[in-house]
Amino acid sequence: MTRRKKEAESQLGFTTLDTPNKGGIQEASALHCMLSESLWRRLGSGGDLPQSGGEYNPYPVARRVNSSHGMMIDDDMEAGSLGPYHDRPRTFPNMRTKPYTPLIFRILLGINVRVLFILLLLGFGAIFYMGASTSPIIVFVISICILSFLVSIYLTKWVLAKDEGPPEMVQIADAIRDGAEGFFRTQYGSISKMAMLLALVILCIYLFRNTTPQQESSGVGRSTSAYITVAAFLLGALCSGIAGYVGMWVSVRANVRVSSAARRSAREALQVATRAGGLSAIIVVGMAVIGIAVLYATFYVWLGVDSPGSMKVTDLPLLLVGYGFGASFVALFAQLGGGIYTKAADVGADLVGKVEQGIPEDDPRNPAVIADLVGDNVGDCAARGADLFESIAAEIISAMILGGTMAQHYPSGFILFPLVVHSFDLVVSSVGIFSIRGTRESGVMAPIEDPMTILQKGYSVTIVLAVVAFALSTRWLLYTEQAPSAWFNFALCGLVGIITAYVFVWITKYYTDYKHEPVRTLALSSSTGHGTNIIAGVSLGLESTALPVLVISVAIISAYWLGQTCGLVDETGNPIGGLFGTAVATMGMLSTAAYILTMDMFGPIADNAGGIVEMSQQPESVREITDVLDAVGNTTKATTKGFAIGSAALASFLLFSAYMDEVAAFAHQPFKQVDIAVPEVFVGGLLGSMLIFVFSAWACSAVGRTAQEVVNEVRRQFIERPGIMDYKEKPDYGRCVAIVASASLREMIKPGALAIISPIVVGFLFRILGYYTGHPLLGAKVVASLLMFATVAGILMALFLNTAGGAWDNAKKYIETGALGGKGSDAHKAAVTGDTVGDPFKDTAGPSLHVLIKMLATITLVMAPVFL
Amino acid sequence: MTRRKKEAESQLGFTTLDTPNKGGIQEASALHCMLSESLWRRLGSGGDLPQSGGEYNPYPVARRVNSSHGMMIDDDMEAGSLGPYHDRPRTFPNMRTKPYTPLIFRILLGINVRVLFILLLLGFGAIFYMGASTSPIIVFVISICILSFLVSIYLTKWVLAKDEGPPEMVQIADAIRDGAEGFFRTQYGSISKMAMLLALVILCIYLFRNTTPQQESSGVGRSTSAYITVAAFLLGALCSGIAGYVGMWVSVRANVRVSSAARRSAREALQVATRAGGLSAIIVVGMAVIGIAVLYATFYVWLGVDSPGSMKVTDLPLLLVGYGFGASFVALFAQLGGGIYTKAADVGADLVGKVEQGIPEDDPRNPAVIADLVGDNVGDCAARGADLFESIAAEIISAMILGGTMAQHYPSGFILFPLVVHSFDLVVSSVGIFSIRGTRESGVMAPIEDPMTILQKGYSVTIVLAVVAFALSTRWLLYTEQAPSAWFNFALCGLVGIITAYVFVWITKYYTDYKHEPVRTLALSSSTGHGTNIIAGVSLGLESTALPVLVISVAIISAYWLGQTCGLVDETGNPIGGLFGTAVATMGMLSTAAYILTMDMFGPIADNAGGIVEMSQQPESVREITDVLDAVGNTTKATTKGFAIGSAALASFLLFSAYMDEVAAFAHQPFKQVDIAVPEVFVGGLLGSMLIFVFSAWACSAVGRTAQEVVNEVRRQFIERPGIMDYKEKPDYGRCVAIVASASLREMIKPGALAIISPIVVGFLFRILGYYTGHPLLGAKVVASLLMFATVAGILMALFLNTAGGAWDNAKKYIETGALGGKGSDAHKAAVTGDTVGDPFKDTAGPSLHVLIKMLATITLVMAPVFL
Repeated sequence: MTRRKKEAESQLGFTTLDTPNKGGIQEASALHCMLSESLWRRLGSGGDLPQSGGEYNPYPVARRVNSSHGMMIDDDMEAGSLGPYHDRPRTFPNMRTKPYTPLIFRILLGINVRVLFILLLLGFGAIFYMGASTSPIIVFVISICILSFLVSIYLTKWVLAKDEGPPEMVQIADAIRDGAEGFFRTQYGSISKMAMLLALVILCIYLFRNTTPQQESSGVGRSTSAYITVAAFLLGALCSGIAGYVGMWVSVRANVRVSSAARRSAREALQVATRAGGLSAIIVVGMAVIGIAVLYATFYVWLGVDSPGSMKVTDLPLLLVGYGFGASFVALFAQLGGGIYTKAADVGADLVGKVEQGIPEDDPRNPAVIADLVGDNVGDCAARGADLFESIAAEIISAMILGGTMAQHYPSGFILFPLVVHSFDLVVSSVGIFSIRGTRESGVMAPIEDPMTILQKGYSVTIVLAVVAFALSTRWLLYTEQAPSAWFNFALCGLVGIITAYVFVWITKYYTDYKHEPVRTLALSSSTGHGTNIIAGVSLGLESTALPVLVISVAIISAYWLGQTCGLVDETGNPIGGLFGTAVATMGMLSTAAYILTMDMFGPIADNAGGIVEMSQQPESVREITDVLDAVGNTTKATTKGFAIGSAALASFLLFSAYMDEVAAFAHQPFKQVDIAVPEVFVGGLLGSMLIFVFSAWACSAVGRTAQEVVNEVRRQFIERPGIMDYKEKPDYGRCVAIVASASLREMIKPGALAIISPIVVGFLFRILGYYTGHPLLGAKVVASLLMFATVAGILMALFLNTAGGAWDNAKKYIETGALGGKGSDAHKAAVTGDTVGDPFKDTAGPSLHVLIKMLATITLVMAPVFL
Repeated sequence: MTRRKKEAESQLGFTTLDTPNKGGIQEASALHCMLSESLWRRLGSGGDLPQSGGEYNPYPVARRVNSSHGMMIDDDMEAGSLGPYHDRPRTFPNMRTKPYTPLIFRILLGINVRVLFILLLLGFGAIFYMGASTSPIIVFVISICILSFLVSIYLTKWVLAKDEGPPEMVQIADAIRDGAEGFFRTQYGSISKMAMLLALVILCIYLFRNTTPQQESSGVGRSTSAYITVAAFLLGALCSGIAGYVGMWVSVRANVRVSSAARRSAREALQVATRAGGLSAIIVVGMAVIGIAVLYATFYVWLGVDSPGSMKVTDLPLLLVGYGFGASFVALFAQLGGGIYTKAADVGADLVGKVEQGIPEDDPRNPAVIADLVGDNVGDCAARGADLFESIAAEIISAMILGGTMAQHYPSGFILFPLVVHSFDLVVSSVGIFSIRGTRESGVMAPIEDPMTILQKGYSVTIVLAVVAFALSTRWLLYTEQAPSAWFNFALCGLVGIITAYVFVWITKYYTDYKHEPVRTLALSSSTGHGTNIIAGVSLGLESTALPVLVISVAIISAYWLGQTCGLVDETGNPIGGLFGTAVATMGMLSTAAYILTMDMFGPIADNAGGIVEMSQQPESVREITDVLDAVGNTTKATTKGFAIGSAALASFLLFSAYMDEVAAFAHQPFKQVDIAVPEVFVGGLLGSMLIFVFSAWACSAVGRTAQEVVNEVRRQFIERPGIMDYKEKPDYGRCVAIVASASLREMIKPGALAIISPIVVGFLFRILGYYTGHPLLGAKVVASLLMFATVAGILMALFLNTAGGAWDNAKKYIETGALGGKGSDAHKAAVTGDTVGDPFKDTAGPSLHVLIKMLATITLVMAPVFL
């Protein structure tokens, strides 16, 4: 126990002092002290808590050691020097810990402002220069991205200008922020070390690989291609990290502002939450687009593309693959670590708090409640930011590679089309976000409108604009005189994608919303016990895979045929537009990604706001508002997942064909078929599907194990501090935060390593087997089959896990509305069990699988030299 | 409610009389009355039960209407005319219902014995004549089968000669037998109607199909081939039905004899149970072998094979495919219906009995207990018989088809090899079964030996003999002068199969036996609640797919390479032995099938015996014996499932190549590759995997729904008859039996129809799509991909479901040994929830998936004309 504690502390960057006292060795951390005694007194009935400094001192001094501003925190609050609530000042700047600022920010802040301004100008100048030497389209894309960053700066200012509410809210928010930032720092510290190691491995592999004929003819040597891949990988990883950081940075600041706004009006709270979600969504999407645009332009200028004897522009997109791999690498660990963190805390808190002690969710008496609230930020915001960043990056790159194939015969607009689509995405989604406004009478307690309706209205605005923008982009970039109606076919492909996304969202809602039959049946099955509830939930989840698969199937085939019949042909007259049609459909699906991500980010922010409201014991009316927002957040979260899987399925299929092209290029021979009738290839499929099962197992069991640690800790605290239940003693929140953080960092390694290492090992082993048995390309074929089977199994497993989890959650919520006996009934207990099981399904294993699918596709592309 | 009751009654073939009395409308059935009042009094403390015929009459008269011997049953017992236990006669022939005899048996019994004998002799003569005109190997195979039938007749006599114990046991056993036979009759009635319908469909398809060049050259016309396929299909279905019937027939008779033997000695009980299991195992395997041998010989003689202008012997095995399809068709519905029956009753009984009321398993006060015991027979014995029958048939046929390909260049021993292997299987397994003997001192209460050790000893004997027999068979049939060492390579392939089976059994034990770490960890996770127990169980199940997949992968590849390098080549010098090597490995795996099936059948018989002992309130020492046997039965059941999946995976892969050959033959063009890079083929894979998910969902939810009906009924009985808990009132067992039976018949249709219809529909749709888009063979390719993805997903899903279910079951058993608080603790409650969830996983969905995988392979073979 002690070893683990030490480990946790050293990873989280703060230390604890063990002060021997009456109750044995007291353990406390900085976080432990974040909630002041005076607040604690206010929460309880003002019972007979012993005075601090007296015989019993539950709050030993804690120091923050690796902050440059080592300071005693919370002194005022500790000393109990604050007056009653209405006398207190609204904010207490001196009582707050200094927010953590990453090194790069600190360096930037340290530079003289004028120098910084000049540097920035120079940077933009260089980017525009490169853009201008490449294509006006690149200039357009970069300008839009910069404009949208300006929009997000405006949104940041707007959100930060909102008040943070009374000090008890601020204290809780600070505790959450501290926990989240501490975990983020340690987590991304580990991830960056692993990324460095992997970069080194990639460098070695590429320095010893064979070169392709194209590379030889274009003069891109072995070392250049190695540096390009590694640089792209690192840039992708960095951008993904920034995307995650921004997601978390915003949410830990927005949560308390939403809580505070909820004291005034529902509409204002909704507006703050959406704008906060929107700002990080815009940054995430913008980063993905501008990163690729800049890389593209840099490589273009650096390699002198399209000048005689140099690389052709059509081969350029393949160089970007490292970027996608970097992004998915970081996203995988971010999602795993964050997902394990959030759900272990949640499950642990629920099992003891709700089930055993019967106290409500987010009750301040629960020692794991702060860890739970921290989890929402690191698991949902940071991880989902990295996830969507990666989805968009992977999709843009795969579409650009296919566009490159098209551009061998047709204009280069095919290559840059994906970047333009996502630039428009930024514009239309911003409009959608701004369409959600606070009402005039925000001072008055306006009646609660259904926030879902408001969000849906915004979505409708966005989608209508997206359709128009999409059609314009196809006409602009995909028009060619050889096939004048091709652009229209592609516009239809985009429409297929948009419709698919819409239908996906609808199906997910049908299976997870308690307005519909499946969840009601599930709730009914809870009335016959825990067992039937689980059986029904598992069946519901397994069954819910059917409709999405049918929709995806129809989408793939129809988009493929629209593309195939658009009139674009190669020199021998064969139609070649099929796969690009599928790519365009994927882009259509993601053409409102920024708005979707906004709705998704909205969820955890609202959830956190609800927690802060609950913990700071606000009046019932405020809680009602945040509860409504939270419920809407659950639905939007579930629908985004469906959306993420749909796009992952399509993107993966595209990356698969890119992989086939790349293998063919390296192997100097055509590589068009993956024949599953060959035993080794069949075995590859078996292994790929198995990978998905084992990965899901490890992700779930990580949550289970960590939750058990939390349960034991919370039980221990309730036993050792019997006063907690009467608000007479303060729980040790920091201990739970430390346990969860260290456990999730430890647990994310195993599944992550499995996902990264197994395709490489399988490919390498079968390459050797193929060498000895005289089968060329065996390794590449087996990996291809592994990839496809893993994609299919992954899509189904993710659908199963997400839907089952969402349905259990809402079945519980349905019962809590009073159905089937309501809260406290046996049916409710069974439903809580289902909810607990669903937590790691829908928030750890499920979302990690989305990332895994795309990561597998990018890793096979980058690591292809190993298999050949 | 009433409509459903009526429906249930009419399906089950007995009616109930609604007698209005004090307590409202009393519903009772024949089964209701099977347990007599006097027994009931003995069970309770002899409380103040109102006299029958008086004011309160809980047992209204029930009549069996569709039995030809409509009679008042149980009269003696009803009248309470039996004296105390020691005065009563040991058996009561006149009080028992007449056991149901199927029509065919009744006709056979109606024939004069001499005529029957002459007919039998003539039949055997004809079979031997055909065998002799085909090949001496066929004569050998048929002789061995007939010999082993004689052995099983000896075993039947031996088992039936055992006493049935005291009347209370007999009564319970009769109730079980009645329920099982009633359900079997109705279930197989529905199945046979569906089979007839399908036969008609097949006939139509084949009458309008194209003929292959081989068929044209051999003079087998369209109609001949149609009749052959349909006849084979119907014979397969019939044999599968008989196999299932025998399994159930034996188990409902052996259970009470095992209970009775357990009163004397553990060893004797074990011997009775194994011999009973062995006799049905021998019949199941023997039926599969002799059926194929007779069909083969018949077609050989009828079509004049190998005479000039006729069919070649190498094409003959393809005609047997219908037999495999018939077998798997029946097995699918038998497994689904039986699996739903047994687990719905089990879950329903446990949820109210164990969890809510806290009474032990198999307690006579539980109204669902008889239904639960009936379930063991129809779900485990009958269904597993049909399942293994189908496994062996599918495997023999696929290996014969591949052997046919080999026999184009090499001796025809390649074709008949699988039949010989399974003939030896019958011999060596019989030796293994007979090696388990009763000890001399059976009269004395011998100390309980570990029955697992005894069974393992028998298995060791069998496996050693099997290795020797296998080596001999390869030398005998696979020796060719062109490649003198080929037989040795194939012997090694067989060894690979045998080792794979052994390792599979070991892995399953590791994950499901509480002596090992996984189940202990699972048990530990129960101590933190229902939720963590389920999460841990799901993770365990998902993770447990890894090792079996690795083992299967190694087996496939090594057997393939052993075959490929054995020296057998086609006319162009290409090695051709690879796939046949895999086939030989599969045969190796199944070379001890009869013994494995014996161990498997042992499980439900022991389980039933335990139930009878518990219900008839035998002394503690007797219960201890049956408990030990039951625990061993659980382990053997789990291991057989691992074994069944392993062989299904291999057999399916073989049938897949047979499918490719057949498509090539019909399409008059080579069909060697299934390229998953084609969008439609990828979509086929998606659909195939989805099929597995949805099928599992429907199988599980069927159990869940039916269990809920049982729970409601049991709760109703406990409320309406409060005396049940004090043994003062008798529960209405018959009502639960009727509910479960009618529900499982209703529920088996949906998943079964899905499995059969979807490959046909998908193949047909894509055939049309291919026709309009100019892609020949698109339907066949998509179906091939559907088949492969479904196989892979099915293997993984079945492994997951079986292992998770087994582990949950044993985690509960582990806690019941006293660990973690023992029975009644919170950990135990959580473990019971896990066990409940695991029930439909491991006994309904999991085993149904084994059958489904092979059914898909055979249906695509038979239905291939639809896709072309």
